[in-house]
Amino acid sequence: MKVIDKINKALEDDRCFWSFEYFPPKTQQGVMNLYDRIERMCSLGPLFIDVTWRWGGKSSDLTLELCANSQTVYGVEANMHMTCTNTNFSLIQGALEKAKEQGVQNILALRGDLPDGTVEFDPSVGEFKYATDLVRYIRSTYGDYFCIAVAGYPEGCLCPEDVDRDIEFLKAKQDAGADLVVTQLFYDVDNFIAWVAKCRQAGITMPILPGIMPIQNYGGFKRMTDLCRVKVPQEIWDRLEPIKDDDQAVKDYGIGVAVEMIQKMREAGVRGFHFYTINLERSTRMVLERLGFVPTVNEVRPLPWSPSLSEKRAGENVRPIFWRNHARSYIKRTELWDEFPNGRWGDARSPAYGELVHAVQVRLAPAQAERKWGTPESVDDIKALFVRYCRGKLDSLPWSDTPLQPESRAIEDCLAQINARGFLTINSQPACNGAPSTDKVHGWGPPDGFVYKKAYLEFFVAPATMQGLLARLDAEPSVTYHAVSKSGDLLTNCAEDSPNAVTWGVFPGKEILQPTIVERVSFLAWKDEAFDFWNAWSRVYARDSPAAALLRGICDDWYLVNVVENNFQKPSESIFGLFDGLGQPLSNGVPAPQIEQQQQQQKQ
Amino acid sequence: MKVIDKINKALEDDRCFWSFEYFPPKTQQGVMNLYDRIERMCSLGPLFIDVTWRWGGKSSDLTLELCANSQTVYGVEANMHMTCTNTNFSLIQGALEKAKEQGVQNILALRGDLPDGTVEFDPSVGEFKYATDLVRYIRSTYGDYFCIAVAGYPEGCLCPEDVDRDIEFLKAKQDAGADLVVTQLFYDVDNFIAWVAKCRQAGITMPILPGIMPIQNYGGFKRMTDLCRVKVPQEIWDRLEPIKDDDQAVKDYGIGVAVEMIQKMREAGVRGFHFYTINLERSTRMVLERLGFVPTVNEVRPLPWSPSLSEKRAGENVRPIFWRNHARSYIKRTELWDEFPNGRWGDARSPAYGELVHAVQVRLAPAQAERKWGTPESVDDIKALFVRYCRGKLDSLPWSDTPLQPESRAIEDCLAQINARGFLTINSQPACNGAPSTDKVHGWGPPDGFVYKKAYLEFFVAPATMQGLLARLDAEPSVTYHAVSKSGDLLTNCAEDSPNAVTWGVFPGKEILQPTIVERVSFLAWKDEAFDFWNAWSRVYARDSPAAALLRGICDDWYLVNVVENNFQKPSESIFGLFDGLGQPLSNGVPAPQIEQQQQQQKQ
Repeated sequence: MKVIDKINKALEDDRCFWSFEYFPPKTQQGVMNLYDRIERMCSLGPLFIDVTWRWGGKSSDLTLELCANSQTVYGVEANMHMTCTNTNFSLIQGALEKAKEQGVQNILALRGDLPDGTVEFDPSVGEFKYATDLVRYIRSTYGDYFCIAVAGYPEGCLCPEDVDRDIEFLKAKQDAGADLVVTQLFYDVDNFIAWVAKCRQAGITMPILPGIMPIQNYGGFKRMTDLCRVKVPQEIWDRLEPIKDDDQAVKDYGIGVAVEMIQKMREAGVRGFHFYTINLERSTRMVLERLGFVPTVNEVRPLPWSPSLSEKRAGENVRPIFWRNHARSYIKRTELWDEFPNGRWGDARSPAYGELVHAVQVRLAPAQAERKWGTPESVDDIKALFVRYCRGKLDSLPWSDTPLQPESRAIEDCLAQINARGFLTINSQPACNGAPSTDKVHGWGPPDGFVYKKAYLEFFVAPATMQGLLARLDAEPSVTYHAVSKSGDLLTNCAEDSPNAVTWGVFPGKEILQPTIVERVSFLAWKDEAFDFWNAWSRVYARDSPAAALLRGICDDWYLVNVVENNFQKPSESIFGLFDGLGQPLSNGVPAPQIEQQQQQQKQ
Repeated sequence: MKVIDKINKALEDDRCFWSFEYFPPKTQQGVMNLYDRIERMCSLGPLFIDVTWRWGGKSSDLTLELCANSQTVYGVEANMHMTCTNTNFSLIQGALEKAKEQGVQNILALRGDLPDGTVEFDPSVGEFKYATDLVRYIRSTYGDYFCIAVAGYPEGCLCPEDVDRDIEFLKAKQDAGADLVVTQLFYDVDNFIAWVAKCRQAGITMPILPGIMPIQNYGGFKRMTDLCRVKVPQEIWDRLEPIKDDDQAVKDYGIGVAVEMIQKMREAGVRGFHFYTINLERSTRMVLERLGFVPTVNEVRPLPWSPSLSEKRAGENVRPIFWRNHARSYIKRTELWDEFPNGRWGDARSPAYGELVHAVQVRLAPAQAERKWGTPESVDDIKALFVRYCRGKLDSLPWSDTPLQPESRAIEDCLAQINARGFLTINSQPACNGAPSTDKVHGWGPPDGFVYKKAYLEFFVAPATMQGLLARLDAEPSVTYHAVSKSGDLLTNCAEDSPNAVTWGVFPGKEILQPTIVERVSFLAWKDEAFDFWNAWSRVYARDSPAAALLRGICDDWYLVNVVENNFQKPSESIFGLFDGLGQPLSNGVPAPQIEQQQQQQKQ
C-alpha cells in the first residue's frame, strides 16, 4: 500500500500519526536485534517505517531486505530510501525493479552525498544530478506504482541562505511527481512553522512530515547537529551543559524537548511526525506515551496477529499459535507454500514446513545475556527467571524478546505460580468469552463483532512431573493437550490431527474467522525450534560449564507441552487448577540468581 | 454404513433402538407424501428404515430410489428388501449392482411369494429356490460389503408345525452369511420369547428384531393376520369386538397393545424393535412416545441438519439455510457439484445451482389442500393462515410440510404477531448464545461443545411495506438483509457477497463448525423456488378464480426478504423490534377462512 494513501486517510480523519526511521546495522547480530526492535516498535502503531540507503557492498541489499521483511513479517509499510548520485543508472534501475518485485511501494528519493572531498556534481559518475531527476524517472517509468517521498530542508540543505532556493527545488520535486515531504531534523519549531507557510505559498501542497530526533546523548547530538548544519536553540545548549555527562539525564531531557516540539506543532495543525530513531526504542516510545498518542491508537486490528503485507500472503488469516512470538521464523518456514490458509486451517493444507535455515539464536550478545539472565546453577534458578519474566521484572527470555503480552496480565499471578513449580511457560493466552471486537485488550476485527479465545498454555516440564500431569489432563474431558520430548516422543489425547481453533471472531455478515489454531503437525514442526532455544542459551556460557550442562540437560530430558482448556466459558484461572499440587515448589532457601537489575533503558 | 454395526453398537451400549418399514406407494403423489413422512419420522430416531420389494414394473426401481434418497437426503440408513424366487438371476445381479452403486449397503434377503396359484418352487422360473441361496450368493459375490438381514418366523413360515424346521432354515441362513433377523409380525409375546430361546439353542447368534405392527383398524388387522397366519390372543379379539367400528378407538387400543408387547420384550432383554408402519406415522410415534423412547433419544446429532449418507457428500457440513425445509430440492440441485463445502462455505465454492427439474408442488391433492387452507379471498385470509401455522393450529403450509421447528416455539408469539401484520414468514430461527452442545432444543455436535445461532427470519412482504422496512433495516448496524422480487430486483446492505455463518459450534479440539450460512448467490437460487410455491398453491383453485388470482398477484408483486440479527448476544425477540408499527394489522372484522380443523391423525 502507498504511504501517501494512509497519510491522506489520517489527515481526512484529523488523526495524529507517526513514522520511524531505521538504518541498516553493520553486523548480523545487529540485524537480528533491529528486527526484534522493529517488531516491538510496531506495537507503537507507526503509520510506516523508513530504512536508510547506502550504495556499495551489501548495504543496499540489506535496506531492501529490511523493508521487504518488515512488510511481510510485521505487516508495517516500509518506505525505502534511495540516493541517486555517485552511482550509475543501471544500478538504480535494478534496485527499483527489485523493490517492485518485493512489493515495496514507497521510495524516499534523495540526491545523496557527493563523493568524499567533492562539492560539485560529476556527470561522469552518474546520470542523475538531483533528487528531482530520480523522482521524474520513477514517476515516468512506474506511473502510479510508487509513492515517492522527498526530503525538505527547513533550515536550508547546505546553509540558511539557500532556504528559498531549496523551496523552489522542493516545488520542482512536486512537479516531477513527488507525493510527500519528510524534513531534515530540526529543533527550531517556529522556523519550521514559518517554513511550511512559505512552502504552501510557493504552491507546495504535499503533506510535510517534520523530522524529530530525540536527543540521546550530548556528544552524538553535537556531532549530528554540526553535520546536518541544524540550528539548536541556545536554551537547549544551556539546559544540556550541566547534565552533559549524565547520559540518562540527557535522554530524559531529550524526551521532554521532543514532546514540547510536537505539542507546539500539533497546535499549529501538524498531524504527522517522523522519528529519527537511530535504531533506538525507548526515547521514541516515551515521547509517544507522554503525548498520550499510543494508548489512543485505536486503529482496527484486522486480526489478533499482524497480517503480512506480502502480496503472496494476501488473504492469509489463520496461523498456528506456536510461533506467536516468532513470526519471522514462521514466515520463513512457510514461504514456499503455494497458498496460505484463509478462513480455516483446512484438511487440504498439509503443512510441509521448511527446515530451519539458521539455527535458533539468543538475541543478546553472550555478555548481555549473562547480565540479564545470570548463570543458572539449578533448575530453581531457571524457575526464578521465568517467574520474574511473568512478573514483568524481566523483559525477555530466550523464547520471548518482548515482555508478556498485555492480555496475559490478567493471568500473571497464576502464571508466576506454575512457573515457580516448574511449569516453564513460553506461550499463553487467557480465555475470552465473547468480548466486543472493539475491546482494548482482546479486540480485533471489524466493529459490531465478538471475539473468543480458549485458554492456552505452552510450557516445558521435567519428566518426573509428567506422569502426574498426564493423569490430570486425561481426567478432564474439556482439555486437549500435546506433549513431546526433544526426541519426538508424543503424548496426546487428540485422537485425530484436526486443528483446534483457539481464537475466533464472529462478525456481521461473515463466516467465523478463526485466526489461530493448535495442531499436531505444526506443534511437531515448532518443537525443534522450541527445544533448540535451550541449546542456544547454553552457548552463552562456556561449553563445559555447569550452567551449559544444566541447560543442555533440560533440552534433552524435559517435555514441551501445550494444553487447551476448550471450555472458554470457564474463567481463565480454571486451566491453572490442573497444576494444583504438581511439580516442585521453588525452594525459598535458594538465593535468587545474581542478576544485575536490567531496566529497559539499559538495552539501548 | 452397515445396519449390523449400528445394532452391535446399540447392544454394546445396552440401548433400545427401533426401525421403520415402508412400502413403495402406487402414485407419484403417494411417493412425495411418503418422502415427507420418512423425513418427519426420522425425527423419531430410527436406527434404520426398511423398504419392501416387488419385482415387475417400476416397483423395484422405486424401492431402490426410496432407499438411496432416504440415505442421501434424510441421512437415515436404508435396508432394502429383495426377493429371489419368481425372477431370473440376471435381474437379481442387476439389482444388487445398482444398490451398490447407489450406496445402499443393507439387504433383507427374502424368498418372496411363489407365483399366484402355485405352492411349489418352479426351477424354470429362477435360479434361487430359498432365501438362503440369495444370502449365499450375496455373501460370496460381495464379501463384507452388504449387511444381510433375513426373515424369522416365530409362528412358522406357513404353519406352527413348521417352526422347528424353519429354525433349521434360519440357522442355514446364518451359515450362508446372514447378519441379523427381522421377524414376521406377531402378537403372542410369550411365544416369541420361547422361540428366541430355541433359536439360541440351535446356534443362531444373530440379533433378532421382533416385528411389531400396531393395529390400525379392525378390517385390515383381520385380513393381515389371516394372510400371515399370525396367531392373535383371544383377549385382543375380545377387546376389539365392541370397538371394531370406531377406527380411532381401534388405533388407540392398538397403540396400547404394542406398548405392552414392547415393555414385556424389553424386560426379557430385547433391545431392538422393528415397526411395520404400513406407511403410517401416528401409531408408531405414539408407541415410541408412550414408551418414553423418543424423548430419551440422545444420539448425538452431528449437525443441526441431517447429513447425507451419500458417499459423494461425505464431509459436507455447510449448507445455506434457505432450503432447511426442502432438503430434497437442495440435494437435487447440487448433485452435480464435484465437491461439497466442508468446514466453511468458502470463497472457492461458486454455487452453480442446478435448475429445478420438477416444478415446485404443493404436497396435498387439491381437495385436501382446499380443506386445509380454505379458499383465500384476501391477503388477510392468507395472513390468518400463517398465524395459525405459527400457533401450531395448522400443521403445514405450501412452504413447510412439517409444523414449526421446536426451537422456534420460543419465538412463536413474535412470529404470530409479525405474520398478522403481513410479514409472512417461511423460515426462522431464534438466537442462541453458547448453549451446551447437548442442549435438548438447540444442541448438536459432540459433547463438551457450545452452539450458537444468529436470529434469522425469512418472509414475504407486500411492496407497500418495503420502504418503511428498508429504513428500519438500514438503520441497524448489526442487521444484514437481502430482499428480492420475483423478477430479481435485489436490495441488500451486504457490500460483498461473503457468506454469513448463522449457525456455528465450538468443540474441544476442533476448528469452528459453521453448518448453516446465508449468502446472496444461494438466496437468489432459492428465491425462484420460494416464489413458485405461490403459483403451485394457486393451482389448487380454478385458474380464473379470485383465489388463484390473489395468489398469483402476491407471487408477482411481493418481496422475499431474509434478515439476520448478527448480534447473537441480544435476546431473540430483539429482531422483531424491527417490525414494530410496520405493515397492516389483521382486520378483526374479517372472519377467519372456513377451514376444517385438521388434526395430525387425520392425515393418515
